[in-house]
Amino acid sequence: MKVAIIMGSASDWGVMKAAVDTLKSFGVEVDLIVASAHRTPQRVHDFVKNSDAQIFIAAAGMAAHLAGVVASLTVKPVIGVPINSEPFKGLDSLLSTVQMPGGVPVATMAVNGAKNAALFAVEVLALQDGELSKKLISYREKMAAEVELNDKRLKEGSL
Amino acid sequence: MKVAIIMGSASDWGVMKAAVDTLKSFGVEVDLIVASAHRTPQRVHDFVKNSDAQIFIAAAGMAAHLAGVVASLTVKPVIGVPINSEPFKGLDSLLSTVQMPGGVPVATMAVNGAKNAALFAVEVLALQDGELSKKLISYREKMAAEVELNDKRLKEGSL
Amino acid sequence: MKVAIIMGSASDWGVMKAAVDTLKSFGVEVDLIVASAHRTPQRVHDFVKNSDAQIFIAAAGMAAHLAGVVASLTVKPVIGVPINSEPFKGLDSLLSTVQMPGGVPVATMAVNGAKNAALFAVEVLALQDGELSKKLISYREKMAAEVELNDKRLKEGSL
Amino acid sequence: MKVAIIMGSASDWGVMKAAVDTLKSFGVEVDLIVASAHRTPQRVHDFVKNSDAQIFIAAAGMAAHLAGVVASLTVKPVIGVPINSEPFKGLDSLLSTVQMPGGVPVATMAVNGAKNAALFAVEVLALQDGELSKKLISYREKMAAEVELNDKRLKEGSL
Amino acid sequence: MKVAIIMGSASDWGVMKAAVDTLKSFGVEVDLIVASAHRTPQRVHDFVKNSDAQIFIAAAGMAAHLAGVVASLTVKPVIGVPINSEPFKGLDSLLSTVQMPGGVPVATMAVNGAKNAALFAVEVLALQDGELSKKLISYREKMAAEVELNDKRLKEGSL
Amino acid sequence: MKVAIIMGSASDWGVMKAAVDTLKSFGVEVDLIVASAHRTPQRVHDFVKNSDAQIFIAAAGMAAHLAGVVASLTVKPVIGVPINSEPFKGLDSLLSTVQMPGGVPVATMAVNGAKNAALFAVEVLALQDGELSKKLISYREKMAAEVELNDKRLKEGSL
Amino acid sequence: MKVAIIMGSASDWGVMKAAVDTLKSFGVEVDLIVASAHRTPQRVHDFVKNSDAQIFIAAAGMAAHLAGVVASLTVKPVIGVPINSEPFKGLDSLLSTVQMPGGVPVATMAVNGAKNAALFAVEVLALQDGELSKKLISYREKMAAEVELNDKRLKEGSL
Amino acid sequence: MKVAIIMGSASDWGVMKAAVDTLKSFGVEVDLIVASAHRTPQRVHDFVKNSDAQIFIAAAGMAAHLAGVVASLTVKPVIGVPINSEPFKGLDSLLSTVQMPGGVPVATMAVNGAKNAALFAVEVLALQDGELSKKLISYREKMAAEVELNDKRLKEGSL
Repeated sequence: MKVAIIMGSASDWGVMKAAVDTLKSFGVEVDLIVASAHRTPQRVHDFVKNSDAQIFIAAAGMAAHLAGVVASLTVKPVIGVPINSEPFKGLDSLLSTVQMPGGVPVATMAVNGAKNAALFAVEVLALQDGELSKKLISYREKMAAEVELNDKRLKEGSL
Repeated sequence: MKVAIIMGSASDWGVMKAAVDTLKSFGVEVDLIVASAHRTPQRVHDFVKNSDAQIFIAAAGMAAHLAGVVASLTVKPVIGVPINSEPFKGLDSLLSTVQMPGGVPVATMAVNGAKNAALFAVEVLALQDGELSKKLISYREKMAAEVELNDKRLKEGSL
Repeated sequence: MKVAIIMGSASDWGVMKAAVDTLKSFGVEVDLIVASAHRTPQRVHDFVKNSDAQIFIAAAGMAAHLAGVVASLTVKPVIGVPINSEPFKGLDSLLSTVQMPGGVPVATMAVNGAKNAALFAVEVLALQDGELSKKLISYREKMAAEVELNDKRLKEGSL
Repeated sequence: MKVAIIMGSASDWGVMKAAVDTLKSFGVEVDLIVASAHRTPQRVHDFVKNSDAQIFIAAAGMAAHLAGVVASLTVKPVIGVPINSEPFKGLDSLLSTVQMPGGVPVATMAVNGAKNAALFAVEVLALQDGELSKKLISYREKMAAEVELNDKRLKEGSL
Repeated sequence: MKVAIIMGSASDWGVMKAAVDTLKSFGVEVDLIVASAHRTPQRVHDFVKNSDAQIFIAAAGMAAHLAGVVASLTVKPVIGVPINSEPFKGLDSLLSTVQMPGGVPVATMAVNGAKNAALFAVEVLALQDGELSKKLISYREKMAAEVELNDKRLKEGSL
Repeated sequence: MKVAIIMGSASDWGVMKAAVDTLKSFGVEVDLIVASAHRTPQRVHDFVKNSDAQIFIAAAGMAAHLAGVVASLTVKPVIGVPINSEPFKGLDSLLSTVQMPGGVPVATMAVNGAKNAALFAVEVLALQDGELSKKLISYREKMAAEVELNDKRLKEGSL
Repeated sequence: MKVAIIMGSASDWGVMKAAVDTLKSFGVEVDLIVASAHRTPQRVHDFVKNSDAQIFIAAAGMAAHLAGVVASLTVKPVIGVPINSEPFKGLDSLLSTVQMPGGVPVATMAVNGAKNAALFAVEVLALQDGELSKKLISYREKMAAEVELNDKRLKEGSL
Repeated sequence: MKVAIIMGSASDWGVMKAAVDTLKSFGVEVDLIVASAHRTPQRVHDFVKNSDAQIFIAAAGMAAHLAGVVASLTVKPVIGVPINSEPFKGLDSLLSTVQMPGGVPVATMAVNGAKNAALFAVEVLALQDGELSKKLISYREKMAAEVELNDKRLKEGSL
């Protein structure tokens, strides 16, 4: 099980590290690459065509074409993460990523939604792997417990 | 292989029929239900908890909570289709669907992106089914051929 | 007389404290809970179904489904407070909260409008309580006096 | 039990009729008036100051000041309905209605959300009237039944 | 010649000081008041009805009703200054100020356009006062000279 | 007393006719011209520099520079009317007209606010003409009477 | 002198015909192709790499990547035309086309700005061709004459 | 070969310096001027009419008319750079620059896209200069190499 993460710019690392960390915490192998749809189209092409990953996560800002370009090169699932970029706060990234024409889907996450991109990739992989599925249920339980803990701390005044 | 399609309102059928047709054209079984997150929360809960589908597609307009509610009830992949609804043309549906907080992902398609929701579901299922994968490649080839045909017709003046 | 305040995340406390303080200053009992529509749907369900509060105030950011989920579970008045969250500055929270479909209303306040949520709850409770009504009139008079005081200070150069 | 409905323009009647009908179906008395915050400020002032209604619903389009003006004149609950008006499709009406400053709340509904304004008013009145509360629960059950009926019709192909 | 400046909140002073300074630099008398359309409607009413100013400048943020309320109370020219307020950066203030319905105009300036509100008021007053007109021409010439000076400094590297 | 109306395109006539009619109904002389800031800059320049009008009303759509260009050529009051144009429904026209930099004001009306532009011009002229002022008060009274008439018709069911 | 026009979909022809007609009216050769960045990435690649055109015009809607993809494949000037597409009226197309990251420029026209794309291409070609430059000046003069004609017709009531 | 850069305000220098530096790095002569469409219309007119530059780059914020005004005065290519200005983050600048009416094109870059404006100007000039074309290809290769270097550093943990 391997997920490839393509970032349009090395400056996206601050956001996308959360995706790598999340995938690794589930024991999923990550193949990470910096490759820009606009500056290095051939590099994107070669990476996607030769990758043995099962799922691609593509992150980019502004006129965020990266996820769409990846999706045009493969029929594997492509997850898009619009990056919060100046000055439009990711509205351009979001629309450029999600408003794909019919025929070539990109599964879009929230702006800067790196962690959810990873979790969604795990949900897809878990369809073939019961252990992953159990880990996801456990992950949800931990989140719920954390909400309850925060509730308790808030009421104790220790938040 | 089964995909469940949940529509928040029967009025979404005009858009979502394309998802059913696409899934069926790939030989994927579809479980279709009308269930509103706001008007019938228990119905949504019961359907999701008891479904044997591998993937959920949820479509809703306005304050489109349906996909998020489904995602809160399962660790299976949930695909969201924001419906173009008056007066905000689906901007509210899109933001309500895609801007999920960390921990509970929804894979969001374009506004009214029913066909792509189905294709993405097939891409996920194809990870376990080489035949589906071949059908997807063939689907892409047909799309490309159609583009070329349109190009030819345009140049002939027969478009 | 009791008002329940549900926050989707403990991080909303910085904003919602103003609602608690305002309600208490009017002598209204507050039942406070952290419960996320997405991370802890069952917790939200159980709290709403078992609460003896007369009014619910629900606060959440991003794809802010919390108020809508609460409203789907009760016919008591539900007041929504969209939280200013990054990167869309609460536009997503506002649209996710206010654009409810017909049948299940959420009374929406301004983004981060915690104080007004509390005041509106008091206005509702004051329909059954003449003392509360007098306190609200007094509150308005104090606001007006403060405006006049600021005017005086500005003209004196002591603002 | 009486609810006052103030429309900024007689042209809002096409939208607001649903509020009158809904309130009457719950047996709530309605006091209806056309009064513009901008064209007839004195008329609005006099109506609000002399009304014996328990709740005000105010509907207006464009720079929709009506609900805010009403709220500045009373401490009774004020519900705002932003009207879908050209060319901004109610975005101006929504922001003008919901973004009230601290101290003077307006409970805002969706754009053109006349029915929900009425239902919310009923929810408020139901806090003092157990019969209304039962009617609201029955209303929700009918909505749920309608969703199930639509589901059935869709599956039968008779939608 | 007198211009009245009404600010919805004392916190608008940081922006509106520029209007006072500009008017005074043209020798125009200023009548300044803090008065909120929502918190002190009677105060706004009394001030407008009793003022001997020829022009009103009204500044407010969020659901910025102040200029519209002033315009509903007088047939003198009313200039609106939408204040840049969180979180919508003045988009709500702008739409609430400019989108006035037919019959009651508000002359709207840019968000935080305090200086231009003052200059426009001077332009109106200059229709009756040739000296003011000359001062305006001189003001424009100074602006043009400043642009040329900045150009020179930029080219010298002394900007 | 003369008001000049400059339209960026003859296609703006459908909207701007209301301004001409309103001005004439107040007995104000109108000087009408079609002149585009982009297609006929010299024509705009010559008209503004040679006009004996006291006030300019400029109407344009899309990147609506006309009012700003007029304002750069005169210190007389310039009123801008953003025209509702496809596909952005006048949002571009509004921002292009209202967001003037400090120093060169444009008094901006609502999108398609032709009637209000005329009324505002009359309000400015009325500062020098008591008769105009009385007509404006009478105009407001007629508007108020019309609101009351509509109210009556609505209640009679004859609207 | 040759300009290539690439349309993402044959359905863009209704808009882009104006570009072809304009270029031909200036005597510029046009190479027209339908090729989608998402559905036929290889076709776009091959066309751009093998074209002998001096300038590319690329038109696409929604997540409009086409111009950016073309620009990533050539250092010749690329002009982008965002197509007005449902439901976001070309806001997505515009941001996807214009918000290119540093290094790979796309010269963006207005939404549906096909004629201007052609005129800009002619302006570029005219730098090498004095005849084209004269034709452009003549074109501008005709536009100005048309404005004056419309003005005359409007005043005669024959518009 | 000469490119003229016109800035609406000296405060745009922080952004536009990148355009000057980029043009000079390609050996292109730059003619720089500060000239405001609104504050110094004659200065803009004289500069454009007398310039021997082949291409104009115009940068402005808010109601950014500068590029459009320049384009109305010349048939040479005009490139517009919308400046990120408060409070609308350049949305007003972008729409004011790009939404030009048919007949007078402005080639618009991303908000603050100074470097791309310069690169696009070089691409235009390169049509007549094979050396420039080679430099552009070399520039792209350096960008691609930089992406690969960042990728390497990221994987080494030395980014």
